[in-house]
Amino acid sequence: MEQPKHKLSLSSVRLEALGDGIFAVAMTILVIDLKWPTLEDTSADAFIKGFREILPELLCYIISFVVLGIMWFGHRMIFEYIGKINRYFIFLGVLFYMMVCLVPLSTKFLAENNLQWATLLVYGLNLSLCNLCLYAQWTYGIKHKGLLERELPAEVKKEARFLFLISPAVYTIAIILSIWAPLISIIIFIATPILYLIPNKLDKYLP
Amino acid sequence: MEQPKHKLSLSSVRLEALGDGIFAVAMTILVIDLKWPTLEDTSADAFIKGFREILPELLCYIISFVVLGIMWFGHRMIFEYIGKINRYFIFLGVLFYMMVCLVPLSTKFLAENNLQWATLLVYGLNLSLCNLCLYAQWTYGIKHKGLLERELPAEVKKEARFLFLISPAVYTIAIILSIWAPLISIIIFIATPILYLIPNKLDKYLP
Amino acid sequence: MEQPKHKLSLSSVRLEALGDGIFAVAMTILVIDLKWPTLEDTSADAFIKGFREILPELLCYIISFVVLGIMWFGHRMIFEYIGKINRYFIFLGVLFYMMVCLVPLSTKFLAENNLQWATLLVYGLNLSLCNLCLYAQWTYGIKHKGLLERELPAEVKKEARFLFLISPAVYTIAIILSIWAPLISIIIFIATPILYLIPNKLDKYLP
Amino acid sequence: MEQPKHKLSLSSVRLEALGDGIFAVAMTILVIDLKWPTLEDTSADAFIKGFREILPELLCYIISFVVLGIMWFGHRMIFEYIGKINRYFIFLGVLFYMMVCLVPLSTKFLAENNLQWATLLVYGLNLSLCNLCLYAQWTYGIKHKGLLERELPAEVKKEARFLFLISPAVYTIAIILSIWAPLISIIIFIATPILYLIPNKLDKYLP
Repeated sequence: MEQPKHKLSLSSVRLEALGDGIFAVAMTILVIDLKWPTLEDTSADAFIKGFREILPELLCYIISFVVLGIMWFGHRMIFEYIGKINRYFIFLGVLFYMMVCLVPLSTKFLAENNLQWATLLVYGLNLSLCNLCLYAQWTYGIKHKGLLERELPAEVKKEARFLFLISPAVYTIAIILSIWAPLISIIIFIATPILYLIPNKLDKYLP
Repeated sequence: MEQPKHKLSLSSVRLEALGDGIFAVAMTILVIDLKWPTLEDTSADAFIKGFREILPELLCYIISFVVLGIMWFGHRMIFEYIGKINRYFIFLGVLFYMMVCLVPLSTKFLAENNLQWATLLVYGLNLSLCNLCLYAQWTYGIKHKGLLERELPAEVKKEARFLFLISPAVYTIAIILSIWAPLISIIIFIATPILYLIPNKLDKYLP
Repeated sequence: MEQPKHKLSLSSVRLEALGDGIFAVAMTILVIDLKWPTLEDTSADAFIKGFREILPELLCYIISFVVLGIMWFGHRMIFEYIGKINRYFIFLGVLFYMMVCLVPLSTKFLAENNLQWATLLVYGLNLSLCNLCLYAQWTYGIKHKGLLERELPAEVKKEARFLFLISPAVYTIAIILSIWAPLISIIIFIATPILYLIPNKLDKYLP
Repeated sequence: MEQPKHKLSLSSVRLEALGDGIFAVAMTILVIDLKWPTLEDTSADAFIKGFREILPELLCYIISFVVLGIMWFGHRMIFEYIGKINRYFIFLGVLFYMMVCLVPLSTKFLAENNLQWATLLVYGLNLSLCNLCLYAQWTYGIKHKGLLERELPAEVKKEARFLFLISPAVYTIAIILSIWAPLISIIIFIATPILYLIPNKLDKYLP
């Protein structure tokens, strides 16, 4: 029944290209609805007033952009180990991309109703689902030997698991806190990306 | 008259890149017009009311996203066998991409007038035309030996044909049913992607 | 003064990637402003009325999409011969991409004021400038031996020149005719892409 | 502790792909908000009036497009020398892409309030930050030997530094001038790209 000579290579290159495209569009789209308020006059006061109006939205944009950048890095990293794909892996990829495409929507919702528990819930849930889909893709990929491209050290496996799951855990705390202390919740959202800048155990595998 | 030394390679790589870009943009654009309703107050009731308002649109977005994901997989698969392109193949590709770009439009139309026969007709027709264009590309490609990159087993030929044509067939039934039973019609649209998750005869060719 | 060991390769691959991305976005953006009119009721009459309203816009979208598809093919073909790039070639590329990005704008203008000489002038001028920029890129590229990747047969040189310049010539006629006979002008815009489907002398170089 | 056999390659290819995608979308998005004014009648006067209305916006679009094209070239050039990436390099890349994605916003702001000091400040600051982020990426990359792909001649190092820093310097002058002479300021913005068309010391390294 096995026909190895007809076996397709199905390299992951094109799924990565689709992903890069989706990240590029999602990151750029974040900014589409941002709009500087029309300036009343040419005074510095009018400009500062306008800047203050746009600031919360701009801040939400920056958080989401950095978070998407970190997710892109995670997405990029899994393909250092996984070199081939199959139907189920692609399906998990489509789910992940769907969650990524919803980030501009959640960000806009957050920007328009800032510091409300409901928007922090939607935003946190969206980001957590992105990371969980990415984790599902990773877990599926490393369990199927046919998809792996290189040996996976136990340490990388453990650290990657930690890095994929730490932010959904932190976001869950932020969501729960948002009911009583929305300000602390938003600070957690701002601070989480910094977790990924701290040196970690994977650094020695990087150039 | 033949000048084999001047013969161009015309690898399919760049057409695939254009396609990946178009899919990435079309998938992300789906969500551009989605907008959370402004919350009246910070109560849970206001949030649930807003969520209910956005739910049908979100559902349409999810269906279209998954359908586009499956089409992307089909589009990706044909290039496992077809490695070179010519003018007519590219023309069929442009037609396919045109239909793909219309999916966000049909989805918005469906989301705004849900459960009407007219919108289900437009949506079903759009998705069917996507698949038929993809099928035309595949049929043209495998008939021109110069474009084929590897041997095409008879079984793959038959199964691919079935997989390309099954959804237009199912969508036609959904369109006809929409006149009397729009609810059953939309359930068919939701269920069709599942057909592509069931194990099939092509799986043994995948890693 | 020559330092061949430091000479950069500057392969054209990434300029092509930027171009594919710009084409993908421009082609998808064409459809963003298209919108089905809200249906008054569920009758077939209301649907047909809505369809008639959207039809001229849809037609403009289809023409522009096919024209962009053909331009993409031309853009792709020049990189079969040109494999390296320099600063001036990239500058001509940026001009070409700028003209391509203006096509959705001209198309929208055409769709909203159809059959007026002014819109046909803008649309025809935009498409002509696209082709002239592409022709400038081609002419510059083949004159600089360092950029050429393979030998360029005289026949290809002549035919490519013809294919790049035929549409600006035809569009100029369409623009002039639009003053007296806008309907004939739009028919010319619809018919021009067909010129590129007729078998030509370059076909024997393709797979 | 060193495990060279597990060392990941982390080629820069995919970061470049993300960047090309972001540039492609940002460049195309520039034009999304451009809209021809509705023509009052079919006379030449109405057309010229409409054209005059759109002209300042079109001009801003053209400046930003050319500036982004030059930045893309700079971004492309650094990857001629840098072939591998690590976490901090990617982080600097994400900052750069964030600034690039804000260019359509600044351009729109400039187009709507042209010749005001505040808009020229925002626009100039945005463009300067783009170049400074690119310069930071370059400086970081060439300092980490593991990321370099080829030998970097001292002359290239010096000239690249000059080319990355000249435009922020010029934009700072333009910003300061905008308080007294906004017209001269905008002329500087128009003229700056020409600096990058003048032959420079890097040309001999190009094909």
